[in-house]
Amino acid sequence: MGINDACAAIKKYKRFLITVHTSPEGDALGAEVAFYNLVRKLGKSAIIVNEDKPPYGYDFLCKNKPIHLLSKKEKNIKFDCFVALDCADLKRTGKVYGLNKNNNPVLNIDHHISNNFFGRINWVDPEASSCSEMIFKLFKKLRQKIDKDTALALYTGIMTDTGSFRYSNTTAFTFQAAGELLKYGVNVPYVYRNAYENIPLSDIKLLLRILPKIKFYSQGRIIGFEIKKELIKIKRPSIDLADQLLSFGRSIKGAEVVVLFKENSGEKNQVRVNLRSQGKVDVNKIASFFQGGGHKTASGCTLVGSIEEIEKEVITKIQSYLI
Amino acid sequence: MGINDACAAIKKYKRFLITVHTSPEGDALGAEVAFYNLVRKLGKSAIIVNEDKPPYGYDFLCKNKPIHLLSKKEKNIKFDCFVALDCADLKRTGKVYGLNKNNNPVLNIDHHISNNFFGRINWVDPEASSCSEMIFKLFKKLRQKIDKDTALALYTGIMTDTGSFRYSNTTAFTFQAAGELLKYGVNVPYVYRNAYENIPLSDIKLLLRILPKIKFYSQGRIIGFEIKKELIKIKRPSIDLADQLLSFGRSIKGAEVVVLFKENSGEKNQVRVNLRSQGKVDVNKIASFFQGGGHKTASGCTLVGSIEEIEKEVITKIQSYLI
Repeated sequence: MGINDACAAIKKYKRFLITVHTSPEGDALGAEVAFYNLVRKLGKSAIIVNEDKPPYGYDFLCKNKPIHLLSKKEKNIKFDCFVALDCADLKRTGKVYGLNKNNNPVLNIDHHISNNFFGRINWVDPEASSCSEMIFKLFKKLRQKIDKDTALALYTGIMTDTGSFRYSNTTAFTFQAAGELLKYGVNVPYVYRNAYENIPLSDIKLLLRILPKIKFYSQGRIIGFEIKKELIKIKRPSIDLADQLLSFGRSIKGAEVVVLFKENSGEKNQVRVNLRSQGKVDVNKIASFFQGGGHKTASGCTLVGSIEEIEKEVITKIQSYLI
Repeated sequence: MGINDACAAIKKYKRFLITVHTSPEGDALGAEVAFYNLVRKLGKSAIIVNEDKPPYGYDFLCKNKPIHLLSKKEKNIKFDCFVALDCADLKRTGKVYGLNKNNNPVLNIDHHISNNFFGRINWVDPEASSCSEMIFKLFKKLRQKIDKDTALALYTGIMTDTGSFRYSNTTAFTFQAAGELLKYGVNVPYVYRNAYENIPLSDIKLLLRILPKIKFYSQGRIIGFEIKKELIKIKRPSIDLADQLLSFGRSIKGAEVVVLFKENSGEKNQVRVNLRSQGKVDVNKIASFFQGGGHKTASGCTLVGSIEEIEKEVITKIQSYLI
């Protein structure tokens, strides 16, 4: 099943409930806003319902958009097709799937290689940089014009999921799509600034307390950071500090694995471990050993114990994987 | 004069001396390597001579390339066309221009708006993201095949001059060119990693000593950093720390101007001041006031005095420009 089945479903059904995964990021939000615009252009009715709010800083994309958060009001929405975007598994839609009481057909459009084809109609393309790139293809296939608002949504999705065109998922088609979207009025530095250059001063201050405590193991082949709960208690960060720290770690020459240990503020003694690899070490194997998972270059696990003990244990495990 | 004149010159002349500006970066290096490959494909002879070495980390682009550094040996090179790439002014070629003793025609290919048309043949396109994007156009115009080596050079130039496709110079054509270059075998994360993620541990340690001393003026609308000469004495940095610090400063919400003060290690009491604006404040005016210059969003000046006094003076000037 592929794009043609997705197009057939879009033509067939009349009322769409559109959702994405919990903790949505740029690609999920961009894809759903664009998909909403697409079906509306075709004269269909549609509603977007998400379990979680957009992350900090995404007002530029989500303001004045028909994105509903799950509440009592949404319980009786009528629809004939449930659309899950950017979800590898139906569970990723969170409680929103509970709205499909009548077991209406599910349309699954996603680019994750781990997608389990949970829909009645599935279009899964792991070669696509992003779900937004797939929605771009739908616009072309259905010969619908891309307006400025849709171009912003699609461009934001593509840009954020490729890390501003730097990850290996960036293809010739990705560039071609981005180039076309610019013609509809996307402002490149505006999107970049909103997605990446809007860190609140309070978060910067937190980062500057964590960064200098960077740890180097195995002659700098392993880079470690820790976020202790005392620190987060002072002021809850608006952005995902992990992203910033892991990407700082990756910029260091010779760093093969970057690992972040974060004490959970809620649960007792839980430590979240995030792992990033530059390619040589398969960090999915390491995370799996500790009952976590992910990909070869990005994975995570949650352990119970003191942060010091967990650090020792995980670092020893990573070291055993250095060749 | 435009691309057609450049093509005519390439066809007419037989022996090219190719150079770029002093302190070459990714775009200058990418453009000259690609231009060299272009004229060689056309059966011409060519030599690249630069005044300065490529910056740290550019081995991936320059290794085994015919890039000569100016020395006695180069003094008697025979050529019939002097090619200056990515230079707004002939002076930017440094001492290399001294090789043009016979006043051979100069071919000037550049994308800086401030270019002063110093060549006998000039092709200046301020709309181009980079000089490499212009060389890409030459390959198309002259119907020459782009090989893998050339694609790497052109892609590196385009990527670095657009800050990985995030600055306002990124156009629809830029994306189109990048997309085509990928088809010839460019490895996107490889280029990104080499250009941006290869900071030596010793430089990271320097950065982590400077970053926490960040200064906030005018409720964080001005961000300041300082690099004192004592710090640099410990270990001379391999990378340009200024780039890292200025771009960290730009990522802070509400920052309108980022300013870096750097004590020159050689000259007595000289302080180099680099200014970056997010667009509202014209930092060229500020730099010009102190006998420096640049663009509206990026400029610099050099002052003499104690770093503390200079900081006070420059910050007061910037504050007078905040609306």
